[in-house]
Amino acid sequence: MERVFRLVMSCPDNVGIVAKVSQFIAQHQGSILEANHHTEKADNWFFMRNEITASSLPFSLAQFTQEFTPLAKELSMQWHISDSDVANRVILMCSKQSHCLTDILNRWHSGDLKCDIPCVISNHDDFRELVQWYGIPFYHVPMTEDKQAHFDKVAQIIDQHNADTIVLARYMQILPASVCEKYHGRIINIHHSFLPSFAGAKPYHQAHKRGVKLIGATCHYVTKDLDAGPIIDQDVIRISHRTEPDDMVRLGKDVEKMVLARGLHMHIESRIIVHGNKTIILD
Amino acid sequence: MERVFRLVMSCPDNVGIVAKVSQFIAQHQGSILEANHHTEKADNWFFMRNEITASSLPFSLAQFTQEFTPLAKELSMQWHISDSDVANRVILMCSKQSHCLTDILNRWHSGDLKCDIPCVISNHDDFRELVQWYGIPFYHVPMTEDKQAHFDKVAQIIDQHNADTIVLARYMQILPASVCEKYHGRIINIHHSFLPSFAGAKPYHQAHKRGVKLIGATCHYVTKDLDAGPIIDQDVIRISHRTEPDDMVRLGKDVEKMVLARGLHMHIESRIIVHGNKTIILD
Amino acid sequence: MERVFRLVMSCPDNVGIVAKVSQFIAQHQGSILEANHHTEKADNWFFMRNEITASSLPFSLAQFTQEFTPLAKELSMQWHISDSDVANRVILMCSKQSHCLTDILNRWHSGDLKCDIPCVISNHDDFRELVQWYGIPFYHVPMTEDKQAHFDKVAQIIDQHNADTIVLARYMQILPASVCEKYHGRIINIHHSFLPSFAGAKPYHQAHKRGVKLIGATCHYVTKDLDAGPIIDQDVIRISHRTEPDDMVRLGKDVEKMVLARGLHMHIESRIIVHGNKTIILD
Amino acid sequence: MERVFRLVMSCPDNVGIVAKVSQFIAQHQGSILEANHHTEKADNWFFMRNEITASSLPFSLAQFTQEFTPLAKELSMQWHISDSDVANRVILMCSKQSHCLTDILNRWHSGDLKCDIPCVISNHDDFRELVQWYGIPFYHVPMTEDKQAHFDKVAQIIDQHNADTIVLARYMQILPASVCEKYHGRIINIHHSFLPSFAGAKPYHQAHKRGVKLIGATCHYVTKDLDAGPIIDQDVIRISHRTEPDDMVRLGKDVEKMVLARGLHMHIESRIIVHGNKTIILD
Repeated sequence: MERVFRLVMSCPDNVGIVAKVSQFIAQHQGSILEANHHTEKADNWFFMRNEITASSLPFSLAQFTQEFTPLAKELSMQWHISDSDVANRVILMCSKQSHCLTDILNRWHSGDLKCDIPCVISNHDDFRELVQWYGIPFYHVPMTEDKQAHFDKVAQIIDQHNADTIVLARYMQILPASVCEKYHGRIINIHHSFLPSFAGAKPYHQAHKRGVKLIGATCHYVTKDLDAGPIIDQDVIRISHRTEPDDMVRLGKDVEKMVLARGLHMHIESRIIVHGNKTIILD
Repeated sequence: MERVFRLVMSCPDNVGIVAKVSQFIAQHQGSILEANHHTEKADNWFFMRNEITASSLPFSLAQFTQEFTPLAKELSMQWHISDSDVANRVILMCSKQSHCLTDILNRWHSGDLKCDIPCVISNHDDFRELVQWYGIPFYHVPMTEDKQAHFDKVAQIIDQHNADTIVLARYMQILPASVCEKYHGRIINIHHSFLPSFAGAKPYHQAHKRGVKLIGATCHYVTKDLDAGPIIDQDVIRISHRTEPDDMVRLGKDVEKMVLARGLHMHIESRIIVHGNKTIILD
Repeated sequence: MERVFRLVMSCPDNVGIVAKVSQFIAQHQGSILEANHHTEKADNWFFMRNEITASSLPFSLAQFTQEFTPLAKELSMQWHISDSDVANRVILMCSKQSHCLTDILNRWHSGDLKCDIPCVISNHDDFRELVQWYGIPFYHVPMTEDKQAHFDKVAQIIDQHNADTIVLARYMQILPASVCEKYHGRIINIHHSFLPSFAGAKPYHQAHKRGVKLIGATCHYVTKDLDAGPIIDQDVIRISHRTEPDDMVRLGKDVEKMVLARGLHMHIESRIIVHGNKTIILD
Repeated sequence: MERVFRLVMSCPDNVGIVAKVSQFIAQHQGSILEANHHTEKADNWFFMRNEITASSLPFSLAQFTQEFTPLAKELSMQWHISDSDVANRVILMCSKQSHCLTDILNRWHSGDLKCDIPCVISNHDDFRELVQWYGIPFYHVPMTEDKQAHFDKVAQIIDQHNADTIVLARYMQILPASVCEKYHGRIINIHHSFLPSFAGAKPYHQAHKRGVKLIGATCHYVTKDLDAGPIIDQDVIRISHRTEPDDMVRLGKDVEKMVLARGLHMHIESRIIVHGNKTIILD
């Protein structure tokens, strides 16, 4: 894959934004590989993502930032630019189920998920060797009666590894509000229901009780409100009256791991903008 | 399609039920075209549906009933048998949207939906001519301030036409509890959300507000609790941040009409057993 | 829906195309509602579609064309612009199956498909009254031994009604090469298989024979090579060993009508560019 | 999961088969957990699968076989019975891609795929340590110019490990006809296209060339005719004009591993009967 710069921005909508931004890129001979726009009509807000071939530009990311800042100010932008050669640092957190963990590790190992995984943190020790097989440090932070102590230790490991992103790969614990706020828009959870149905505990059992004919999974950014953050991706599979909760647990794993992987992939490529409690996904 | 008898039963589970029922059928030279079983483990209840070639049996439906009753009593069955040559009488109720109505009419007209449609009832007069083109009586029963009068009139038309089944093809009115109870397990509604999410009014607007990435539709039996009856079928389609509520209304129509048609098809072929607040679908 | 101009273009890829085009639009105060780009890497070709609010521009479509032509020439563009208020004229052709026909007519009648339908042409007279109920002229052109005479008559009706687009809504006849060429990129067919599998006659029977577990439908532009033109859209549904060819015919209708409607919708909104034997769909 | 016997049979269709078989089970107090029938109309052939709680029967599998044989002969059955406590021995064969391999290993390790994996055979040494982490022997059998020698070695390992089933988890080599015949109905392959489209080499490149809008994967039993054996399961995902062959390779992996896992799951639970060049799947 060619090295690219990803320029992601949002600002109040107006005539001429695309012209100005693309003019800026063109005057520096920037070659646009991919471009996506969106205007949110409800609040007249504009979103844009450009992938620009890095080698086509005469300057570094730092220089780009310096040169682009005046225009960004003129248009009242929120914006950032990232370099595909600087990998997103993704910490994985898991518990006693391995389907999401091994799925992400395999995608990363085979080169399909282009990020760094500085470490895996778990409240159980089960997958230490599996994770270490991939050459990744594994931290076992047991959950104790002193929950605060557990989360302090977790927060310290996250900080120490300089995480860009935290993935709750079926971590099954509710993070403290302080962590949610510190990593706002950077903690990705997979919930095993089609939200907003069946938030909270034991969603497959809730689904079984209601008698639904499809079950699903939802990948979302974590906020301090349980299972209520901005939704990134969702999917469902068909079940029937014969599907017992245990079968749902088994079958649901496939949806969970696929939806989480798709969401993480979008996140790593800087394709997601959180806007209010929604996501704009520029793909 | 060959004429078949459809024997549908449920009873407490026990060793030997299938043996006894299939022995009964075999001793009368009945040729089983299709058979489906299910055991609900939670309450140890057994369900079975057999399609038997009518011409292979030496007796009529009435005689079958007489002969089978002792065995049904022995096994404490709830059961019924129906004849594919006696069409289910399906009354359609609609309002100002035609997608479900015309979809069902076209399936019926082309022979894909094997039922009778004794009449269409609507609180608006818009589709009178379209319905009459199909040779089906159309009743316009305007909604007035006196809701009771409206529903009395509707109930009278339903009775007069001897309905087996009532389909709320986007009827948009809440039927009185008395009608729901009288036609328990025989009123089919299509709700334009993936229940239990977004019950009640304006589900697409609710979905837009929550920022979900899939929208759906749910076909269910009507009970006196709004949008809470036994679910028959559901499906979803993918949307994005670009999908405005108006687009959802347009795109959702396709899911609504497909899900309603599938549910009605199952119902007409006596494939659905309501069990508690769930459906067992023997297909 | 707001009135928009749809500017659709393709040209050799180069630095600065987006800048120049969006600069052109911005300098005339054009408000871009939606923009999509694509670069085909295989032959370094660039594609773009812009939806511009008509009322934001100071000129008519004719003036736009005049003003834009120098830039289009400079960039060696193939391009066209259309006005959402000038409806595409879509002639429907059908035979003895009505599912696609009534589905399109209902979408059109309810305002979900924004086009004109100047007439319906069929080699059978079955749907005359149904079509006329919608206020649309119906032409019955029987197929005779003299195929040439049939197609001459068809071609004459098409010309007389000044068709922009011809939809073969299960027309079941192979159009002569001369018609295919005259309306290149403007004749849309629905084939009842997942192409390239099962081209030609009786695809469901071919599918049954091979024992596939999904059946599908393909919407494509017609070329002189049977079922080999550029694919617009496809979809599938799950079947099983129990699905007989007759069931496939019935179940497949749902996929056929959905896929055809989606393809036609894209076509009418000028979202499809034919490039070689493929389609670029800017949505 | 309760221990069950799986009785799978097929025979010429006739009145009374279900009665006789279920009577046999009932007279021994067998409790049927699940039962599925199918009649293939084309050749009037009957198929049935019963899951019977092992503890409800008074005898072992060997005794069941002895007692059941007279009835099986009377009805001219092909049949077998298996014990859920006797694990199917599944040998995995892979090459240089790990997505199917690790997916199956993780399902097996987490208890979702109830089989034994006596060994993994590969023509490359890449995944030796990963496989060994799971405690499974790994055989590296390089492909040499002497293909016969390679396959002789492979065949010897398969025999030595007493395989019930061989899974080609993206093995990428064509097995010799002798192996295909010896393990008829027991070698499962995953092909990365929606067969019968794009059989043979580089199906994603073929798909890209044709411009299809969905790509798929097919799980099938291997016969001596390349990619032409009985299809077990298939699925597809949506792509667009933007999806380059490399993206297809990445995205397709998800479909490949899901479809292969579903097919293997059905196979292990004795749910699949090969009939001619098709599969009857009793689930």
